Amino acid sequence: MTIRIGSGVDFHQLAEGRELWLGGILVPHSKGAVGHSDADVLLHAICDAMLGAACLGDIGVHFPDTSMEFKGIDSKILLQRTSKLIKDEGYEVVNIDSTLCLQAPKIKPFVPQMQEAIAGILGITVKDVSIKATTTEQLGFVGREEGVVAYASVLLRGV
Amino acid sequence: MTIRIGSGVDFHQLAEGRELWLGGILVPHSKGAVGHSDADVLLHAICDAMLGAACLGDIGVHFPDTSMEFKGIDSKILLQRTSKLIKDEGYEVVNIDSTLCLQAPKIKPFVPQMQEAIAGILGITVKDVSIKATTTEQLGFVGREEGVVAYASVLLRGV
Amino acid sequence: MTIRIGSGVDFHQLAEGRELWLGGILVPHSKGAVGHSDADVLLHAICDAMLGAACLGDIGVHFPDTSMEFKGIDSKILLQRTSKLIKDEGYEVVNIDSTLCLQAPKIKPFVPQMQEAIAGILGITVKDVSIKATTTEQLGFVGREEGVVAYASVLLRGV
Repeated sequence: MTIRIGSGVDFHQLAEGRELWLGGILVPHSKGAVGHSDADVLLHAICDAMLGAACLGDIGVHFPDTSMEFKGIDSKILLQRTSKLIKDEGYEVVNIDSTLCLQAPKIKPFVPQMQEAIAGILGITVKDVSIKATTTEQLGFVGREEGVVAYASVLLRGV
Repeated sequence: MTIRIGSGVDFHQLAEGRELWLGGILVPHSKGAVGHSDADVLLHAICDAMLGAACLGDIGVHFPDTSMEFKGIDSKILLQRTSKLIKDEGYEVVNIDSTLCLQAPKIKPFVPQMQEAIAGILGITVKDVSIKATTTEQLGFVGREEGVVAYASVLLRGV
Repeated sequence: MTIRIGSGVDFHQLAEGRELWLGGILVPHSKGAVGHSDADVLLHAICDAMLGAACLGDIGVHFPDTSMEFKGIDSKILLQRTSKLIKDEGYEVVNIDSTLCLQAPKIKPFVPQMQEAIAGILGITVKDVSIKATTTEQLGFVGREEGVVAYASVLLRGV
């Protein structure tokens, strides 16, 4: 069995007047994430981990933030395309683990919806999509609510 | 063989008048980590990586920092409980790799004790518990000695 | 099959008048990374991930920045030595995934050269060495171009 590791990290600024998309779900909050697409930091980290495991470059290579094609795009579409890319390369997802670092809001109530959205797109079960969250205990730009960070790790297997 | 990946990251502020617990060991230092429990950033990252690999939620779900049950608790107890949770789910640890990011003190002399403490709780050998350390080269809140960060990654296998 | 996970993270300050070595390649830029060696943050993260997966300590243990032996050293030599250390322990690399976090310059044009340099040293193919890059969207010390961070994850297998 071929098995491969991938890991991703993504960063977005937070600002008032933006929507906060996380894991494919719109999370009600006073601030949202700034970006060329919908700025879904969690989906971006997951896409990058998948692309990295398959050695297909990174999210910036496939979905450049200078392209109008991706302006305001729903990152679930990027995840769908990433899924196709790794399948075309002969891989499938074993499991994903991820961590959202943000000071607020509490995302626990939204985790099951996020898992369902991601698992649905990737054609895996929700038990193969782990989403964790932590604050940074008020430290750094995450602690000052200037930004959010997401980490993702993934195992792929050859099919 | 079922094999699964997990990764964790944890953050704690440093303050005078607190003890510095790292990897289950009390490390002599002028500052300690602030938290609801003993604030052992390394054990928390490892617990989160294990929970994530088994898709069991995160440390905040299982050991909420709003519960008096966990006030000042020894994080080795949290690791013990996490170990039971993943065993009940049908998994065991293949290996753990971790990195402590802190500007001071040097933790190298304490690493063997940390490995023994963690391996003992998890019922694995010290060769399956890697603990690395790095400064951030004075950068950011870690560099200013305002906080500590720990990263952990883990492989689990189905038993 | 024995399979093991490792992960590494490394930090370096950026300063004018230094060379910027990344992934074994000299990248033209107005600033370079500060360190005791050539300060190649990507190779250091990869070395640490490999050492961690084999539970052999960390880069600071093997290549201390207090030793004149490593003053200004080409980090490709450190990667070569790390490769020997894990082979002596009975492991080989399955694949590496990594992410460079830096605000500038764009490193995409240099990635193929980096992959070749690393794969050549480790005796693996370029398809087993993934190098991704991201900015931090102007956030934190990376966003202010005060420093660079690299993350690496690796799978090893017993031979």
